[in-house]
Amino acid sequence: MIKAGIVGGTGYTGVELLRLLAAHPDVELSVITSRGEKGTKVGELFPNLRRRIDLVFVEPDDALLKDCDVVFFATPNGTAMKSVPMLLEAGVKVIDLAADFRLQLTGEWEQWYGMPHACPDLLTEAVYGLPEVNREAIRSARLVANPGCYPTAIQLGFLPLLEAGVIDPQSLIADAKSGVSGAGRKAEVGILLCEASDNFKAYNVPAHRHLPEIRQGLTLVTGSPVTLVFAPHLVPMIRGIHATLYATLTDSSVDLQALFEQRYASEPFVDVLPPKSHPETRSVRGSNQCRLAVHRPQNGKTVVVLSVIDNLVKGAAGQAVQNMNLMFGLLESAGLDGIALLP
Amino acid sequence: MIKAGIVGGTGYTGVELLRLLAAHPDVELSVITSRGEKGTKVGELFPNLRRRIDLVFVEPDDALLKDCDVVFFATPNGTAMKSVPMLLEAGVKVIDLAADFRLQLTGEWEQWYGMPHACPDLLTEAVYGLPEVNREAIRSARLVANPGCYPTAIQLGFLPLLEAGVIDPQSLIADAKSGVSGAGRKAEVGILLCEASDNFKAYNVPAHRHLPEIRQGLTLVTGSPVTLVFAPHLVPMIRGIHATLYATLTDSSVDLQALFEQRYASEPFVDVLPPKSHPETRSVRGSNQCRLAVHRPQNGKTVVVLSVIDNLVKGAAGQAVQNMNLMFGLLESAGLDGIALLP
Amino acid sequence: MIKAGIVGGTGYTGVELLRLLAAHPDVELSVITSRGEKGTKVGELFPNLRRRIDLVFVEPDDALLKDCDVVFFATPNGTAMKSVPMLLEAGVKVIDLAADFRLQLTGEWEQWYGMPHACPDLLTEAVYGLPEVNREAIRSARLVANPGCYPTAIQLGFLPLLEAGVIDPQSLIADAKSGVSGAGRKAEVGILLCEASDNFKAYNVPAHRHLPEIRQGLTLVTGSPVTLVFAPHLVPMIRGIHATLYATLTDSSVDLQALFEQRYASEPFVDVLPPKSHPETRSVRGSNQCRLAVHRPQNGKTVVVLSVIDNLVKGAAGQAVQNMNLMFGLLESAGLDGIALLP
Amino acid sequence: MIKAGIVGGTGYTGVELLRLLAAHPDVELSVITSRGEKGTKVGELFPNLRRRIDLVFVEPDDALLKDCDVVFFATPNGTAMKSVPMLLEAGVKVIDLAADFRLQLTGEWEQWYGMPHACPDLLTEAVYGLPEVNREAIRSARLVANPGCYPTAIQLGFLPLLEAGVIDPQSLIADAKSGVSGAGRKAEVGILLCEASDNFKAYNVPAHRHLPEIRQGLTLVTGSPVTLVFAPHLVPMIRGIHATLYATLTDSSVDLQALFEQRYASEPFVDVLPPKSHPETRSVRGSNQCRLAVHRPQNGKTVVVLSVIDNLVKGAAGQAVQNMNLMFGLLESAGLDGIALLP
Repeated sequence: MIKAGIVGGTGYTGVELLRLLAAHPDVELSVITSRGEKGTKVGELFPNLRRRIDLVFVEPDDALLKDCDVVFFATPNGTAMKSVPMLLEAGVKVIDLAADFRLQLTGEWEQWYGMPHACPDLLTEAVYGLPEVNREAIRSARLVANPGCYPTAIQLGFLPLLEAGVIDPQSLIADAKSGVSGAGRKAEVGILLCEASDNFKAYNVPAHRHLPEIRQGLTLVTGSPVTLVFAPHLVPMIRGIHATLYATLTDSSVDLQALFEQRYASEPFVDVLPPKSHPETRSVRGSNQCRLAVHRPQNGKTVVVLSVIDNLVKGAAGQAVQNMNLMFGLLESAGLDGIALLP
Repeated sequence: MIKAGIVGGTGYTGVELLRLLAAHPDVELSVITSRGEKGTKVGELFPNLRRRIDLVFVEPDDALLKDCDVVFFATPNGTAMKSVPMLLEAGVKVIDLAADFRLQLTGEWEQWYGMPHACPDLLTEAVYGLPEVNREAIRSARLVANPGCYPTAIQLGFLPLLEAGVIDPQSLIADAKSGVSGAGRKAEVGILLCEASDNFKAYNVPAHRHLPEIRQGLTLVTGSPVTLVFAPHLVPMIRGIHATLYATLTDSSVDLQALFEQRYASEPFVDVLPPKSHPETRSVRGSNQCRLAVHRPQNGKTVVVLSVIDNLVKGAAGQAVQNMNLMFGLLESAGLDGIALLP
Repeated sequence: MIKAGIVGGTGYTGVELLRLLAAHPDVELSVITSRGEKGTKVGELFPNLRRRIDLVFVEPDDALLKDCDVVFFATPNGTAMKSVPMLLEAGVKVIDLAADFRLQLTGEWEQWYGMPHACPDLLTEAVYGLPEVNREAIRSARLVANPGCYPTAIQLGFLPLLEAGVIDPQSLIADAKSGVSGAGRKAEVGILLCEASDNFKAYNVPAHRHLPEIRQGLTLVTGSPVTLVFAPHLVPMIRGIHATLYATLTDSSVDLQALFEQRYASEPFVDVLPPKSHPETRSVRGSNQCRLAVHRPQNGKTVVVLSVIDNLVKGAAGQAVQNMNLMFGLLESAGLDGIALLP
Repeated sequence: MIKAGIVGGTGYTGVELLRLLAAHPDVELSVITSRGEKGTKVGELFPNLRRRIDLVFVEPDDALLKDCDVVFFATPNGTAMKSVPMLLEAGVKVIDLAADFRLQLTGEWEQWYGMPHACPDLLTEAVYGLPEVNREAIRSARLVANPGCYPTAIQLGFLPLLEAGVIDPQSLIADAKSGVSGAGRKAEVGILLCEASDNFKAYNVPAHRHLPEIRQGLTLVTGSPVTLVFAPHLVPMIRGIHATLYATLTDSSVDLQALFEQRYASEPFVDVLPPKSHPETRSVRGSNQCRLAVHRPQNGKTVVVLSVIDNLVKGAAGQAVQNMNLMFGLLESAGLDGIALLP
């Protein structure tokens, strides 16, 4: 059994990680930390975990964490980077669900996240944990930067087109919509039920921190910088991301459906729907699947890709478990076979 | 492997049964019928089941069903009773998720359901599938009447009090609230999102078909007729039942918390919360748990019990699987260890 | 034109008061205060009021408030009582939408609200602003205690029965359900969309501050203490209260429908539905109406009353405007003729 | 008083028209027809209208309708065109809220709506009722084709850019999101609460009937055909449309904010927000306002316009009343001063 620790397990990413790890056949949860909730039983804070997880939140404790085989950070940005070097040195593998290791350039990271980076040397070692792109590198990684939720949905949608070179990489538009859990479990007025339900709005259209992450990932594919307009929106629902992607086709003869099906034929967690489909976020609610559909309206020059994930699973905790499975040589889908809850 | 068939799998009870059985370690789904959707792939109608269930809906076919070890009916009321005698004769065990076998008195059934009963002799043979009351009888049953959703939540809440004789059985009030999935997957104006969301209302206060079912169950416990006022309400959410139960205490010295904890100490699917708790429906979303709390406001003469279940799981498909497990000598919780999705 | 001021207009009660007063034919909004938002334009905080209200939030300022004809307090409990004596002395009429003047007994107030009262002598002068009970007293009041949301819905439902003496006043149960806006516009985790949507739960069953307020109001009607069990619940919707009321009939010959229709025949804001009806909260969304229905299930000993209001209108800002209309001799329904938004 | 009739008032457009006309100072509602609900009181079907509208639904009756000054059609597509010639001949003005007169080319209409047109000669006479474009023509029109909901939000967003000639008319993308009421009050499985809530999806990406309507409107502005990709999505909320519009700038020196502010400076129902704003659908819930914001992310070549309306008001019934006001020489905003309900 792999001994796993979680740092900062009181947010939505944390409780989802707990749900998945509690049911994972090869994992033993050995420690979960939280400064604010120390002494609280997990099942008291998250009643869905009553009778399933007996752990109590403890204060962060280096000795306990060093005793783990793997440590997940489900902390705010800027926290993991302070402890990761110590853990790596102790031989512990680390998966960071925050953004501390997602960007490779120190300057870019510091600009977008507004603080100095505590261990810039690790930025290049960290492997970006998108298995559909970096599977082999993940297998041998000590440190995995788990991708953001929007970046996961958007990159999986653009990848086949960019890899095949059939779109203009300067024409990318990602109109993305997220459930409110993407904003985290924070006491903020803007995400109260009375503010966010029965309502729809865009936010951060001028700039969103996931923009450089997506651009970096797509640029690695094309080999040259891409231009991306990224407009995120808040949907009055709990879970789910729906990315609607637009790009200008440069090769109008390509069979888009075949391109997508072939690219993802052997992927356990990417499901290409039949032509003319419209994936729904609820079809992945609670599951690690990404479902995709590709359209070419009016047979015009613009390709439209629809991509859905559960932001807390394939967009966070599920992908983290998928990465752990790869890092420890387990079956990639171990503990990830939950079927989406519908309705 | 147990060969299971489902008749009428296109409703919410059906898709939930499919989700649970697809992941059940001891079951092989062999046939699923639907007149309306014959020829449709299961994964086409319910995209959460893509890549997990390869079956195609077929027309009801006696030969295919007779070849099963167990057949679940997830059909409208009045359908199962037409086929059950034939299946029992063929040695197939049957679990009816509709109401055809829930009442023992033919006259009462015909009055509440407005049609003649096709096999009244089976009404007395059928075992009412509430394991917390009838576990041993279910083990040896050929035919199980799976309880209704409200009756499950309400009976589990009143049982400890009635069994202990500490409340006046003429004073029962069940103010119950259900998510909209309880109304089924039917094209009806009243359950459209635009009619039922951002709204709350009672319905069927003069009379609801679950009233005689609950009264029958509680009367079996007390040995004499109970008086119950039952007021159901529609909650703008998908899944979940919350029953708020009121009764007049006849023994004011009873330790209510201890009474509930002892009654359910060994039950795998009933969880009594600590004193002063308020169970939430989301704490059981997608799981087979019932969570209960008991209160005595102002230390007065009225006891208040709060009882939550997922109407599609413990209130329907999950309880059906629990009954199947008992009928076939499997681990009672096999295939039912899914943790509730929260948030 | 009546010059009106609002103290503390940044909550949901405040914005609703602004919406109603901005359209009131006889009112001129002259000042609105908020420490936290001073300098912010009203339309910036509440974009629905753009182009309709040009005011800017200012710091509380006694001189400005004294210059008003009426001041509304939409502040947290314990704030109004500090300024009310000064305003009354200056000849300003005051309507407090918080709880500072709702209880008549100082000791009881201090026990439930956990602080000393700043002007206990005004507790007896303050008129409880439920026009259906206290219309004449309100007309001549200097200080009106605007009722709580639950107390409004519950008292209007019980009143006809208690006034007629046809129920046992020791048998009252109020199972009440509120939309989340009842909890206010506060940054708290429990009312985040991700915590409160797709969920249902009871809360404060052991004790809720509206309990003594309701008991006080009902006791004034009966002349002797009533016993009330009050169980509030949180509904995943924005606005609306639905109270389901139970009581034991002492006179089984009473015509309940006629009793309710006669009691409220001339009330502009209480609408008794036909027999067998189930009022919906959305039928009063944004309006000052209370809609009621009365049932006697199975013709038994228990009467069931269903009562709905919009907690922010008849349960707060609308009732405050209704009280202002009475206090200033205006048409009671002035500015309150908005039709509920449905769907 | 203007005598108004409504044909087909049982849908969401109908009830919203009733709500607005019941409060309109210059209108007397004289007849409302519905085959299915004939004999039903309006307040029985729509309880928000109890005590406000005493009418009873009657069967369509030419004599009654001919006696009106104006008749609104809130009927399914293909209905109005059968009666309009008769009414116009009788001197009655007509406003069609369906699509019968929205396209000018008979062939195009018949292709998209799949039936022959009953009075193609009227297609060119009908005035497209978007006051911000056609105000003068509407004033003198006998027959107004009330725009679709998506077309209203999208055209108002693109108009300033196309009129000023600062974008490439071949580069238009409209990623639009609608609340579920846009689908109407129809008994269909896809818009049940359990199907559409806590979910997000695109639909009709290959082709939607509003596409030719939007193209026609924008082409009239530019004078040459535009290319538009239109991707509609379903949002789990009741009311509201949010259109996110993308286009390639051809003039990178234009002051976009000033352009929008000047274009709509004197429009009573178009509100341009300050720079960096994100309009919310709830800020127009129940009101006739359209709120717009314009962005240029990363100062790049793509302009992003955010446009919100209430699909049932500015996108249907409110715009119809605005058109009526113009046709009868009333104040354009008469009966349309309701403030959006927030929260």
